[in-house]
Amino acid sequence: MYRTKTCGELRAADAEQTVTLAGWVHKNRRMGGMTFVDIRDRYGLTQLVFNRETHADLCDKANTLGREYVIRVTGRVKNRQNPNEYLPTGAIEVIVTELDLLNPADTPPFTIEDDTDGGEELRMKYRYLDLRRKVVRENLELRHRMTMEVRRYLDQQGFMEVETPMLISSTPEGARDFVVPSRMNPGQFYALPQSPQTFKQLLMVSGFDRYFQIVKCFRDEDLRADRQPEFTQIDCEMSFVEQDDVLNLFEGMSKHLFYTLRGMEITEPFPRITWHEAMKDYGSDKPDMRFGMKLVELTNLLRGQGFPVFDTATYIGGICAKGAAGYTRRQIDALTDFVKRPQIGAKGLVYARIEADGTVRSSIDKFLPQAVLQQMKETLAAQTGDLLLILSGENTTKTRKQLSELRLEMGNQLGLRNKDTFACLWITDFPLLEWNEQDQRYYAMHHPFTSPKPEDIYLLDTRPEEVRANAYDMVINGVEIGGGSIRIHDSALQNKMFRLLGFTQEQAQAQFGFLMNAFKYGAPPHGGLAYGLDRWASLFAGLDSIRDCIAFPKNNSGRDVMIDAPSAIEPSQLNELNLSVTHHAH
Amino acid sequence: MYRTKTCGELRAADAEQTVTLAGWVHKNRRMGGMTFVDIRDRYGLTQLVFNRETHADLCDKANTLGREYVIRVTGRVKNRQNPNEYLPTGAIEVIVTELDLLNPADTPPFTIEDDTDGGEELRMKYRYLDLRRKVVRENLELRHRMTMEVRRYLDQQGFMEVETPMLISSTPEGARDFVVPSRMNPGQFYALPQSPQTFKQLLMVSGFDRYFQIVKCFRDEDLRADRQPEFTQIDCEMSFVEQDDVLNLFEGMSKHLFYTLRGMEITEPFPRITWHEAMKDYGSDKPDMRFGMKLVELTNLLRGQGFPVFDTATYIGGICAKGAAGYTRRQIDALTDFVKRPQIGAKGLVYARIEADGTVRSSIDKFLPQAVLQQMKETLAAQTGDLLLILSGENTTKTRKQLSELRLEMGNQLGLRNKDTFACLWITDFPLLEWNEQDQRYYAMHHPFTSPKPEDIYLLDTRPEEVRANAYDMVINGVEIGGGSIRIHDSALQNKMFRLLGFTQEQAQAQFGFLMNAFKYGAPPHGGLAYGLDRWASLFAGLDSIRDCIAFPKNNSGRDVMIDAPSAIEPSQLNELNLSVTHHAH
Repeated sequence: MYRTKTCGELRAADAEQTVTLAGWVHKNRRMGGMTFVDIRDRYGLTQLVFNRETHADLCDKANTLGREYVIRVTGRVKNRQNPNEYLPTGAIEVIVTELDLLNPADTPPFTIEDDTDGGEELRMKYRYLDLRRKVVRENLELRHRMTMEVRRYLDQQGFMEVETPMLISSTPEGARDFVVPSRMNPGQFYALPQSPQTFKQLLMVSGFDRYFQIVKCFRDEDLRADRQPEFTQIDCEMSFVEQDDVLNLFEGMSKHLFYTLRGMEITEPFPRITWHEAMKDYGSDKPDMRFGMKLVELTNLLRGQGFPVFDTATYIGGICAKGAAGYTRRQIDALTDFVKRPQIGAKGLVYARIEADGTVRSSIDKFLPQAVLQQMKETLAAQTGDLLLILSGENTTKTRKQLSELRLEMGNQLGLRNKDTFACLWITDFPLLEWNEQDQRYYAMHHPFTSPKPEDIYLLDTRPEEVRANAYDMVINGVEIGGGSIRIHDSALQNKMFRLLGFTQEQAQAQFGFLMNAFKYGAPPHGGLAYGLDRWASLFAGLDSIRDCIAFPKNNSGRDVMIDAPSAIEPSQLNELNLSVTHHAH
Repeated sequence: MYRTKTCGELRAADAEQTVTLAGWVHKNRRMGGMTFVDIRDRYGLTQLVFNRETHADLCDKANTLGREYVIRVTGRVKNRQNPNEYLPTGAIEVIVTELDLLNPADTPPFTIEDDTDGGEELRMKYRYLDLRRKVVRENLELRHRMTMEVRRYLDQQGFMEVETPMLISSTPEGARDFVVPSRMNPGQFYALPQSPQTFKQLLMVSGFDRYFQIVKCFRDEDLRADRQPEFTQIDCEMSFVEQDDVLNLFEGMSKHLFYTLRGMEITEPFPRITWHEAMKDYGSDKPDMRFGMKLVELTNLLRGQGFPVFDTATYIGGICAKGAAGYTRRQIDALTDFVKRPQIGAKGLVYARIEADGTVRSSIDKFLPQAVLQQMKETLAAQTGDLLLILSGENTTKTRKQLSELRLEMGNQLGLRNKDTFACLWITDFPLLEWNEQDQRYYAMHHPFTSPKPEDIYLLDTRPEEVRANAYDMVINGVEIGGGSIRIHDSALQNKMFRLLGFTQEQAQAQFGFLMNAFKYGAPPHGGLAYGLDRWASLFAGLDSIRDCIAFPKNNSGRDVMIDAPSAIEPSQLNELNLSVTHHAH
């Protein structure tokens, strides 16, 4: 037997027991005639004591143990004279009488501590050592708890988990597919799913009524900071539901997760705001609602006052940064530089301070009479000590987005974005379609199966861009955690959508024929949503990147640097697959 | 609102309530002035009544409803005059006052009944309709319950579910990998995992202690009847364990599953028999233990009696088919044909009947004196009315396997293989290595990381074929449900194994370098196993094929005939992947 107890469970009440522990040497230090070794496993740390007086040989052996050696010890539990309050096992130590070296270890390339000296690259190369660190392991424990609770909740609500296939066919619409050559069908390829969208809809046609799946999905995109080529979705679909049924059920699940994983009881309903409201008030379809600082339109007030930049603007808007009137010139210059960065693209920043006596001092005082400034102060509900920040531009949407970035930055600077505060909301009524200038066609804002709002269907022929969808996103702290829609279940309407999206009858049939055919055999009204598990888990864990809640993540080039994948394959494998490589990496 | 109740929940106690139901028209029939419609959803069937006298329009509309139309109805629940005892909702019917047609349906290509008129091919093409059938849906419900219970059990035992990556690198050892070309790394490929074997071992090096995952795996093999290119494993690994720890824990899980899914309480420990015993007694490493009929060796008894076939045999063995002495000549001829089929390959079959007076009448009476026959009867513990079946051959293993096939066939014929009876056991002590004549090298019987039994390690250099492994399989009803091993955690021993398997240092480093490197940093003793979820679920569901517990299975050519995958991809996709196809399917 390798152990009778784990390294995390011994307490004062266990004193005088004889125990066997196994684990890794975390620390090893000599003091006087004693050697103290901290032994570590997933469950905790326990202090081992080797006494030179009583066990000289054992003590010598203990002194040879390096960091991360794997050992087994037997000994007697003793209460410590000076308990360590910071350690769950801190009340006791184990006086060792037997020591087995199970496996030696090379010195690890970085320290196995919460605050390691290892850089990102080294940690990823030796990810198996990085995972030994408590802070990293705890993220994965949280993720495990989260999937357990998601399953428990959905199962109780009558959902069935159904595995959909991983080897499917490629659909050119949307992001790029990863493809898998078929050896048995030369020249043909499977594709890995970007989502189980069509399969879950088929399951609704099958009458499965309530489906979910926690499932790997794949997207061959140029990777941005927080994207992974493989990622995990909590994918759900329900039949005979309207939008409110879906939102209510998943709001319930979200509250369950907050309660079980973070100990937070959320009793209020999540705010539900329309996409148009969100864009107007926050300049974003994923507003961070941990703080207010809404965008306030000032176009009518400030245009025509003689300030040329405002007079030619289509949109002028401002935010009120509470208590920031004391910002120095230098801080304001930095904010100006921030909004002028190419990623944001504003031309400049106008600001105004609310003085102690209530007057407003603006950077463009000479153009704006105090009366106008007072009206602005009132419109922005500003008070003494506040700083007003104003942007303008020719494109309303773009200017609002710039103001949104500025709002988030001010939220950061003013400490309004605490990681332990969570603000959840639903965004509803997304536009059904987006016009793409470059391709001169409409794209589905969510996907081609999203249902328009019944009351907007009449607009499909004349003003498609105005049609609102029965689509919704769940947003937490400015992060889109999930989203979905009520689907089209009528094949005539689905065909109309495909036409609007520029599919010929043949293309639609080739790509979605099996779904359209399925709809002919009695499709129920249905809808659902999908959550990004990686993102949600990171948010719960308070991480900046999704990587640290993924056991073996890939880097920004889509590589796993630990196993060195992808890599070249044998010519014989290529041959069998009837493939040749036309260009190699250098 | 689409419904206030499901189609499966109304009972006598609900009488006089007004309810709204939604679902599919299962049956529609007129009787006198009434129209009866059975409405169906996942939860059941409810009888709807349309009364011509009171609602002539509704009745007319109901008469136009075809099979599988999707409808919503509102009406009042009434107790039936003649309750249908076979239907959970059979006590009531709903007198409809409102009817909405939600979606019409084409006539399905086969009937949506347990006993459908649709053939396999049609059912697979329209799998979304096939899944509407209760018998098919119930298999997937069972599978869902099974994964829920596996997770619940393992979570309670301290296991963490960790997702390992799907895009990994190719390892030529073993079965063929499916590969995935990388667009961002031209000429390089990911591979889809055949199992998370190396990753779960790395998680043990990381100190995760108890890992599991229910995970898709991939194998590009020429498909046999019951193989799928993608399949699902319950994959588990534990640290600081010996073989018994693993067997005990997973025996516990198995019993939990039998109890929760099949209502069977198994109190006895599972038999544990060694591979050598299994081969000797059953001629198989996955014996069906629902019945006895052990193989009994008769070589010493029957050789040298003058029957030339026996006299030249290396092995002679028999089985005793209880109560089968009444088999006709024709039945025995059929058995002879059975064992002579090329898949089995025996040269002939000798039989003997135990007569009412205790004498033995054999097909080769003239060679065998009654005394020998009586000894044979005793050796086989045969009694009056039994039939003895005897095979012989030059290769002991082959002959035992032939006898094993005959034994299973007799089990079928004598009704000893009831699908509702379950016989579980562990096979232990597998040989570590198998010699491959063709390649003139050893192959690992399980995989290269399997640990030899410590007491056999000294044989590795001299008689490697005799080395037993700490490897085990769990077998139920003659099906290998899962298997695993204690792993090598010592890098010197692992290197020795690689050498025995014919890997050069470079090959081993190239393929398993990251695992071998990881082992240098302190690997704990560890072991685990993996279950085939598809097979186990099929067994619980009493299915002959794994296909019907997979929502969207592939056929024997690895094709999904519903979505028509795999398929050709756009030349632009190939271009982006730096690939060209050298040979196309015709």
